[in-house]
Amino acid sequence: MKTTNFRIAIIGSGAIGSYYGAKLAYGGSDVHFLIRSDLSEIRSNGLSVRGKGENFRVTNVNCYNSTRKIGASDIVLIAVKATSNADLVDLIPPLLHERTMLLTLQNGLGNEEFLAKNFGADRVLGGLCFICLSRISRTEVERYDYGHIVIGEYGRKPQSRTHDVAAEFKRGGIQCNVIENLALERWRKYIPFNGLSILAGGIDTAAILHDEGLRRTTLGLMDEVIGAANRCGYPLEHSAAYEQMKRTETMGAYKPSTLLDWEAGRPLEIEGIWGEPLRRATAAGANMPRLEIVYTLLKSLGEAERKKRTAAKRDNC
Amino acid sequence: MKTTNFRIAIIGSGAIGSYYGAKLAYGGSDVHFLIRSDLSEIRSNGLSVRGKGENFRVTNVNCYNSTRKIGASDIVLIAVKATSNADLVDLIPPLLHERTMLLTLQNGLGNEEFLAKNFGADRVLGGLCFICLSRISRTEVERYDYGHIVIGEYGRKPQSRTHDVAAEFKRGGIQCNVIENLALERWRKYIPFNGLSILAGGIDTAAILHDEGLRRTTLGLMDEVIGAANRCGYPLEHSAAYEQMKRTETMGAYKPSTLLDWEAGRPLEIEGIWGEPLRRATAAGANMPRLEIVYTLLKSLGEAERKKRTAAKRDNC
Repeated sequence: MKTTNFRIAIIGSGAIGSYYGAKLAYGGSDVHFLIRSDLSEIRSNGLSVRGKGENFRVTNVNCYNSTRKIGASDIVLIAVKATSNADLVDLIPPLLHERTMLLTLQNGLGNEEFLAKNFGADRVLGGLCFICLSRISRTEVERYDYGHIVIGEYGRKPQSRTHDVAAEFKRGGIQCNVIENLALERWRKYIPFNGLSILAGGIDTAAILHDEGLRRTTLGLMDEVIGAANRCGYPLEHSAAYEQMKRTETMGAYKPSTLLDWEAGRPLEIEGIWGEPLRRATAAGANMPRLEIVYTLLKSLGEAERKKRTAAKRDNC
Repeated sequence: MKTTNFRIAIIGSGAIGSYYGAKLAYGGSDVHFLIRSDLSEIRSNGLSVRGKGENFRVTNVNCYNSTRKIGASDIVLIAVKATSNADLVDLIPPLLHERTMLLTLQNGLGNEEFLAKNFGADRVLGGLCFICLSRISRTEVERYDYGHIVIGEYGRKPQSRTHDVAAEFKRGGIQCNVIENLALERWRKYIPFNGLSILAGGIDTAAILHDEGLRRTTLGLMDEVIGAANRCGYPLEHSAAYEQMKRTETMGAYKPSTLLDWEAGRPLEIEGIWGEPLRRATAAGANMPRLEIVYTLLKSLGEAERKKRTAAKRDNC
């Protein structure tokens, strides 16, 4: 295994960016965080991670309030909400040298395409995080389950650099596998619990699986996803639905990340998680009635919530 | 047209029972209301109806706090929420003579069957109300649109008594038509806006029709209903979906009755409106993925809301 000495920039200081960034830094990687707020808090307290079998704090965190201060990097790990993608157009250029890799760990579909369009397809890699995290405070992340990651190249087979990046993750104690077909795996990881947990009134995965109707609906959504993936040219096997179901069952009750976002009043990645898969499926001739209803309801619900908040803000004036 | 002299009992003092009862009483029918609360308020204020082209008050309302006090009646007009159907088992017997007709104006499927099972199929008639009402106060109802009613026999063609009942309604100034096939019309009237308006965050029909995705979802739900009706043996034509859509568009923005119920914290008739059509469709081999997701989400949402309210009550103790 070749050892590397990547300069790594972490863009996005939510749970995912903080966790993987802290792991990499704790493992000895050269990690630089863009932190647009709370800079002093992280400088004095560092970043803490706790969870099953791990409990550590990174002190002397390299953090900056602008990407110009980070400068040219080898890997840019992108972990902002997809709803903030527009910001990346200005944030990323100061980080680029000729061979800078852009690795998006964002949810849903369309993020690799966004990066490719703006910075060139050759730079783009994508990763899928199998992890349950919660950001407890501005400087603390709690990991509830899993933690492994799979990474692949955008629109092509793994390159030698892909394996180098995986090796860097492993050095940080992160289980990381290289995948042949990133797009296929994005479809496979599609998690139907996300939307249902919000629309059903804020319930966790165990409550969904415990309810016969919601369980059937979840399986129905997974079947739609598999059918759509197949139509889009990705040979996702039918058993994927049951594997997902089983994996979720072994995890016990947990709130999907989008439900946590929703409860905290953070914007939902509606287009990436629901809109884009639906549009691709529709374009390929696949029928996704369940996904369509979940997508349209969430969009409308998000809009209603935004109006409520705006009105509440006005009332407070 | 034969004139009759029916003794009419009205069970259920929500918007529907109050409106049609008041119309019948104002038209000179012999109407007797079961009022389980607010008896004195109605006795002193009467019942007021206002709306397009009508504005009247019925004074000296015959109202009672038990059906024993009403006694044997010719027509029992049933307008309670289907969630209170269990109460009917005790409420109805004091109203029965040998030929008493039970006319349910309740929403959804399964109410005629409930009455038939408990009191005999021969007694049962059903009516569909095309009306937008709101109960403004305990003694006032406002009508926003429509007002006509269609009635039919449960499980058989219209009888001469069906026409007599229709004539009684007409005498009260209520447009009332007799229908050949009650079950078919129940499927035809199925209104998909109800569930979507709640799940999408409390939006009215105009907002649903204005949103491209929700509009498509509404049409998709209607297509499912038509397919299910056909599978169940009711020849509902495909154009019914577009007719419904057009009718709703001409009505302007209004909140479906179930959304009003939801906002007021009243229980939803989840089984009659969503559960029973789904079960009948499934039994007949029809696939209703959209209805299934709406049904399971509403059930779960109702449960979550009930828990929240119970917790709030506890906090107030």
